[in-house]
Amino acid sequence: MNTVDLNCDLGESFGTYRIGNDAEILDYVTSVNVACGFHAGDPTVMRKTVQLALEKDVKIGAHPGLQDLIGFGRRNINISPQEAYDIVVYQIGALNGFLQSEGGNMQHVKPHGALYNMAAKNKELSLAIAEAVYKINPELILFGLSGSELIRAGQTIGLQTASEVFADRTYQQDGSLTSRMKAHAMIENDDDAVAQVIRMVKEGKVLSQQGTDVTLKADTICIHGDGAHALTFAHHVKKSLEISEITVKSISK
Amino acid sequence: MNTVDLNCDLGESFGTYRIGNDAEILDYVTSVNVACGFHAGDPTVMRKTVQLALEKDVKIGAHPGLQDLIGFGRRNINISPQEAYDIVVYQIGALNGFLQSEGGNMQHVKPHGALYNMAAKNKELSLAIAEAVYKINPELILFGLSGSELIRAGQTIGLQTASEVFADRTYQQDGSLTSRMKAHAMIENDDDAVAQVIRMVKEGKVLSQQGTDVTLKADTICIHGDGAHALTFAHHVKKSLEISEITVKSISK
Amino acid sequence: MNTVDLNCDLGESFGTYRIGNDAEILDYVTSVNVACGFHAGDPTVMRKTVQLALEKDVKIGAHPGLQDLIGFGRRNINISPQEAYDIVVYQIGALNGFLQSEGGNMQHVKPHGALYNMAAKNKELSLAIAEAVYKINPELILFGLSGSELIRAGQTIGLQTASEVFADRTYQQDGSLTSRMKAHAMIENDDDAVAQVIRMVKEGKVLSQQGTDVTLKADTICIHGDGAHALTFAHHVKKSLEISEITVKSISK
Amino acid sequence: MNTVDLNCDLGESFGTYRIGNDAEILDYVTSVNVACGFHAGDPTVMRKTVQLALEKDVKIGAHPGLQDLIGFGRRNINISPQEAYDIVVYQIGALNGFLQSEGGNMQHVKPHGALYNMAAKNKELSLAIAEAVYKINPELILFGLSGSELIRAGQTIGLQTASEVFADRTYQQDGSLTSRMKAHAMIENDDDAVAQVIRMVKEGKVLSQQGTDVTLKADTICIHGDGAHALTFAHHVKKSLEISEITVKSISK
Repeated sequence: MNTVDLNCDLGESFGTYRIGNDAEILDYVTSVNVACGFHAGDPTVMRKTVQLALEKDVKIGAHPGLQDLIGFGRRNINISPQEAYDIVVYQIGALNGFLQSEGGNMQHVKPHGALYNMAAKNKELSLAIAEAVYKINPELILFGLSGSELIRAGQTIGLQTASEVFADRTYQQDGSLTSRMKAHAMIENDDDAVAQVIRMVKEGKVLSQQGTDVTLKADTICIHGDGAHALTFAHHVKKSLEISEITVKSISK
Repeated sequence: MNTVDLNCDLGESFGTYRIGNDAEILDYVTSVNVACGFHAGDPTVMRKTVQLALEKDVKIGAHPGLQDLIGFGRRNINISPQEAYDIVVYQIGALNGFLQSEGGNMQHVKPHGALYNMAAKNKELSLAIAEAVYKINPELILFGLSGSELIRAGQTIGLQTASEVFADRTYQQDGSLTSRMKAHAMIENDDDAVAQVIRMVKEGKVLSQQGTDVTLKADTICIHGDGAHALTFAHHVKKSLEISEITVKSISK
Repeated sequence: MNTVDLNCDLGESFGTYRIGNDAEILDYVTSVNVACGFHAGDPTVMRKTVQLALEKDVKIGAHPGLQDLIGFGRRNINISPQEAYDIVVYQIGALNGFLQSEGGNMQHVKPHGALYNMAAKNKELSLAIAEAVYKINPELILFGLSGSELIRAGQTIGLQTASEVFADRTYQQDGSLTSRMKAHAMIENDDDAVAQVIRMVKEGKVLSQQGTDVTLKADTICIHGDGAHALTFAHHVKKSLEISEITVKSISK
Repeated sequence: MNTVDLNCDLGESFGTYRIGNDAEILDYVTSVNVACGFHAGDPTVMRKTVQLALEKDVKIGAHPGLQDLIGFGRRNINISPQEAYDIVVYQIGALNGFLQSEGGNMQHVKPHGALYNMAAKNKELSLAIAEAVYKINPELILFGLSGSELIRAGQTIGLQTASEVFADRTYQQDGSLTSRMKAHAMIENDDDAVAQVIRMVKEGKVLSQQGTDVTLKADTICIHGDGAHALTFAHHVKKSLEISEITVKSISK
């Protein structure tokens, strides 16, 4: 029988600014990636997010991003591998502070946005990120794009990895996500998105924008928690997975 | 025989900006307070600072400050106790990241600048800070101004505390430091500063600006690591303590 | 016949974060206070906000705040008058950049949040702010709390001033606003708020929380543009003013 | 007879952090590029820098950079042309605030660091920057790397431009500067640097790292104001120019 994890970014509010349906989306996902204050989130938001996730018994991961609040961490910044290492250690540490004070454990680490995308294609950056994770705690699971350099780096360093696929994003024939700056980056139709997810989990394949099948591994599915539509979609995905006899559960036991 | 700890703020550089003689001052002190990225410091500086301190076998503490890089954390900000709690957890966590990745342990926590000064007089703020420290790790030692609310809060919460005195600052009759915004806040003459230190350690007393003696406890002495004069002064203080048969050693074994 | 200006804070979004119904509220107000990137707003938001206000022919003012994005500029920071002067010059200048590039003129300056409230009671801070405004352009109108030090400072420096009252905030017997941290700071009932506004404009009086009447001057009324209820309330206030034969128009012609 | 402008970045300190010999370097240069608070500088530093430059009667320009204080604006960030436009308008405006309050005029605009380097090769980015400058004030002079897209964009938009060469940097055969991340990016020997400058001004040529001559235009020479060696070098360059019968004077009269 197939199993898959369902993950979502969480805790992306900042000060007075609110983003996301954090409390509600927790009813659908099995893992959350908590923003750590660089691209989004702040200390108060992080504490509340950790409390929420612990209440709902959802697995918690760090979601380290670039130092770019105004760009929400989505703009590539030409950082060195050493800088990547340092900002990942810092942000995992900061979130661990709240896990220690609230009495929880960190399950995984998933880089955010541009850091995630740059790492997917950059071996040195990926090795620096994986090493940062390993040196803080070798038991942490590294989430990365299926087939990416980040997954390879995690394996090289000796970390457990989880290959991630996206429910509402389209793919290129090399297995990368279609850039958000291009047309057709997002799958607008829910049924299409759900069908893509089911096929990725069951067959390990996705149809690229170029019309060819790409082979991938689907350990965890990323869905989004912000937007008016997020909860309806999350419900739809989860129910469809269950109907397709795919068990939704977190990577760690 | 008297013993005392000698502490210094460290890792206050930021990006291209350099402050302090970090490598050199480590030869004189027994504890360092490492900036955690809010009022000063950044992830790269924090890693290098932790590496330096571990090499020199000097005890490491977190030095959490207000979110005020431009004011170097020295301007009072009207934060709530909950905000104080959250920023302290975050910053201790972040520094712990580097201690974990470099293989070291945190000895203590000392709030920085305006956070330190506000906590000295504000019971609720102090309790929030002490609780943050305790919930992350009850073995951490809380550094605070001798006779302050912060020391009382640490004792209330159940933390080991270290009462701090200042080598080059003058005192008010209520035991508080003379504000940096007022005249005679700093002791300019080194011999006067050293004599004040020796008396604080040996007799537990300091002469206030009002001419009256203030009783205090001197578990740890704060000296500064920046400025052209810092190293000469550090050497002077340390040597004078030894000549006065005061053993300079860290709070923890 | 009575006239009054209706003003609203605008352009408080930041990066991905959205606040306010900026386009809609412009149909009700005659002046807007545009955030300048310190407590809220960013360069892109500022340009769009200026474009919107120019399209709707609403008067534009700068809304300089403290360097405290995470606190939305609402937390008192112990800045010096010189620092207040410098941050006000900077922010007025920055907004003027967009007025120059878009072909518009600045009408007024209204400090934001904690800067506004600190200035209301602090003569030196108010004089520094008023001097900053005057030195950039002596034709600018200074908005401040009716009866405050800021209004007095503007008059001392030689600026035209506009005394501001608040539609949905309660007053203390000394003419200050009830702090947001206290109960009953906000008037929840719309009819009560509107009745207070009408009386302030027509009689120059408001009933304080202590039960005594406070005399004030109502050149401009502040309403809020964020929150689900904002547009309904704005409509209600404007219509009620018109029914009461009060002309709503901007301070400058 | 040959003439050339000598320019230097100024006002790069931030809060407590000090960089540069600002007061001293003003005795050697004829134009300064003032940091505007994004990659360096802050409101107080900007005011003081403007005051210093006005006292010494040196021409003042804006030095807008990327929103990257921790990277000192030297790391490429993947911004859109619209974002470039917005941050340039904002920063020119902010500096203009201090020029207005201090009674001076802006002569030029020179993008900083990564923004300068990205613009040198990116036509769309350059056009956005040039348009921002033009829309604020068409009389401003645009400084850009000799032979770059930025100079072409300035000409396209209708701005006066000044082609810049570097005293202590080596060149590639395509006329670009050797990246600071590569070996031999800097000319370490002062006599070599001075000889390169003289040849660039007199012959309009520089020997590239590939051994071929590159043709360029030298309207203004960039020297650095930070580092122990800066003043000696500035003195050396200026004296050598004068000995070579090259008049050092600002671009505008």
